[in-house]
Amino acid sequence: MAKRKPRTAKPAEQNGNPNVELTEADRRTLASLRSLADGVVSMAERSRPPHLDIPSRSLSNVRFNKSRRVIEMGSGTNRRELFNLSQARSYMQTVLVTSGCKQLIEQGKTTSIRGMYYLLKHSIEGTKEETFNDQSECDPIIEDVEVTLNALREELHVYASNRGAMVGNITLNDSGDEIDCSRMGSGGYSIPSIVEPEGVKFLSCDAKFVLHVEKDTVWRRFNEDKFWRKHNCILTHGNGQPPRGVRRLLNRLHNELKLPIYCLLDNDPWGYYIYSVIKQGSINLAYESARMAIPEAKFLGLRSIDFVRCGLSPSVTINLSDNDRKRAQQIAAYPWFQNKKAWQKEIELMLKNGFKLEVEALINKGISYVTEEYVPERLEEQDFLD
Amino acid sequence: MAKRKPRTAKPAEQNGNPNVELTEADRRTLASLRSLADGVVSMAERSRPPHLDIPSRSLSNVRFNKSRRVIEMGSGTNRRELFNLSQARSYMQTVLVTSGCKQLIEQGKTTSIRGMYYLLKHSIEGTKEETFNDQSECDPIIEDVEVTLNALREELHVYASNRGAMVGNITLNDSGDEIDCSRMGSGGYSIPSIVEPEGVKFLSCDAKFVLHVEKDTVWRRFNEDKFWRKHNCILTHGNGQPPRGVRRLLNRLHNELKLPIYCLLDNDPWGYYIYSVIKQGSINLAYESARMAIPEAKFLGLRSIDFVRCGLSPSVTINLSDNDRKRAQQIAAYPWFQNKKAWQKEIELMLKNGFKLEVEALINKGISYVTEEYVPERLEEQDFLD
Repeated sequence: MAKRKPRTAKPAEQNGNPNVELTEADRRTLASLRSLADGVVSMAERSRPPHLDIPSRSLSNVRFNKSRRVIEMGSGTNRRELFNLSQARSYMQTVLVTSGCKQLIEQGKTTSIRGMYYLLKHSIEGTKEETFNDQSECDPIIEDVEVTLNALREELHVYASNRGAMVGNITLNDSGDEIDCSRMGSGGYSIPSIVEPEGVKFLSCDAKFVLHVEKDTVWRRFNEDKFWRKHNCILTHGNGQPPRGVRRLLNRLHNELKLPIYCLLDNDPWGYYIYSVIKQGSINLAYESARMAIPEAKFLGLRSIDFVRCGLSPSVTINLSDNDRKRAQQIAAYPWFQNKKAWQKEIELMLKNGFKLEVEALINKGISYVTEEYVPERLEEQDFLD
Repeated sequence: MAKRKPRTAKPAEQNGNPNVELTEADRRTLASLRSLADGVVSMAERSRPPHLDIPSRSLSNVRFNKSRRVIEMGSGTNRRELFNLSQARSYMQTVLVTSGCKQLIEQGKTTSIRGMYYLLKHSIEGTKEETFNDQSECDPIIEDVEVTLNALREELHVYASNRGAMVGNITLNDSGDEIDCSRMGSGGYSIPSIVEPEGVKFLSCDAKFVLHVEKDTVWRRFNEDKFWRKHNCILTHGNGQPPRGVRRLLNRLHNELKLPIYCLLDNDPWGYYIYSVIKQGSINLAYESARMAIPEAKFLGLRSIDFVRCGLSPSVTINLSDNDRKRAQQIAAYPWFQNKKAWQKEIELMLKNGFKLEVEALINKGISYVTEEYVPERLEEQDFLD
């Protein structure tokens, strides 16, 4: 234990930048970080081999909670021991990442996962050993620390990339700036990756629902046509699979402002999967489902019946690949789709059609067909998949 | 010529949506589109085989204009004839794309290149022939129409994806909304792909320069540290190779507001290349250099001397790959770098170092080292590569 000096921890305010005002969440996270470190120290002081118990993020430890209707982690953990040759390295890396998070929080700063890697990378004194050989060694350790502390990545002051935008009848405060999302020009409000209530506060909202679309190109059509003004809503996109910031914001819009979330996604396995993640959470981030998943989210379209229902041209269809078929069958077997007749029919029909359809393809019926007919009709009929 | 009815063209205002107010640029573009179509019709009326002359976008028709210091297209053209079996298809596609652009402009709407493809895709009556088999057939035709009409893609109402963000001491009007870029929260103003003066107007600007960084992660560090407030500047990023909207906005900030543009990019061939494109234009978009390139842009860093100058740890270096070495040599041979001693030394030293450095690596010296020491020192010394 020679390498660890006992109990050098001071209160955060003394260690860190005295000008930094810690939020309530910061104090909570620092307390968890400190208690993890205290555990290590007390094991050492009692001459016991230090270890950490890391909740297992493997598929076998993930389950669908039927009553809460979200994907959750089970209680399985893996022990990581310092005095175990095969675990010593990842033990050290885990402790190192917690120290990096502590630095960031105390200095009131954030960084990306790449930044965290560079922050902590060094040769271990007296050896040629690097703390991390590359970023792929560091990323899963950050996730380990998230689940161990039961803290969102954002609470550790580590963020994913910004992707996704929002416009509509809502005003919010982002880091002290008042943002009126109905006056954001053609680009919209760029959804940050950290949208916790400490940084992003909802000030006022007239909107009655959220329309979430898959791609920025589709989002732009809706924004250009001022759809959100006509239909008094909020319009978001996540540039494909929405990043954490977008999912968390949708979750907050739904839970805090009671807004229904309608998803306009492609009629293909990828579109189904995006919906599944928004609604039930993902296997990868199962430990964050409670703050991310929206079991009440609705799938507005595109649906496999749209080819006939909307009278689309065969020219705009895209043949399913073998991989598409395989993915579709996997998704149909997800426990949360398994007992839903409408979803089983939806996926079956796509397989029977033999093709997929992108939302952009609706332009073939007219430049604004999607904003003036397709979506208004679905909203009018309240015709969604659940 | 049975398929073309002669002279059905009406003034745009009659054809299109009567509620659409055309901008000056729209009228100009419509006039070019109409004159292209008139050319076809008049050839037909004089019983001559219709053709189009498309400026050649091949490397052999691109040159570096030494006095203007930008990459330009030469005057070479390729003829595309209707009555030529190998050209009839692309002739038809070219005319089709121009008709798509006309529709968009007349209806006051925009779309993506994917949208354009879907808009125009159909089976040709009485045949099984599709107008386009896939998008990769349509994209180059859009570029052909751009060069033929000497119109920016954005003037044809076709846009690239939104990518890149801006904060700082500037206020602008975007599509009627006033945007104060010093009050845009943590996400910043999302730079739209169309930033022509008709849509984006500069209202007021106190900033003294623009700092353009490569990646959103680095941008975020600068924004979080309110660098732009301390140094009275504008902060932009382009998420890697900046898209057209970002390049055009930088060009306008430089030319209209006389702001110097400083680039903070990685010390690797990709960083050099991004600088080269911002400064001189790209071979692909040579026909847009006049509105995109900024020959006065400066390279602030990272530089190959920074490893020693900043005392960086060997832990944060990344070994050059064979491909990196090859690219570096290609870039050193670019005519616009060839006679610049400082650039030749820069690239030589990188090759001699044998490694590259990312801007993010500076975090290893301290979380805010890049914003508090590295960039301020370079600005203080006015130490840039040109």
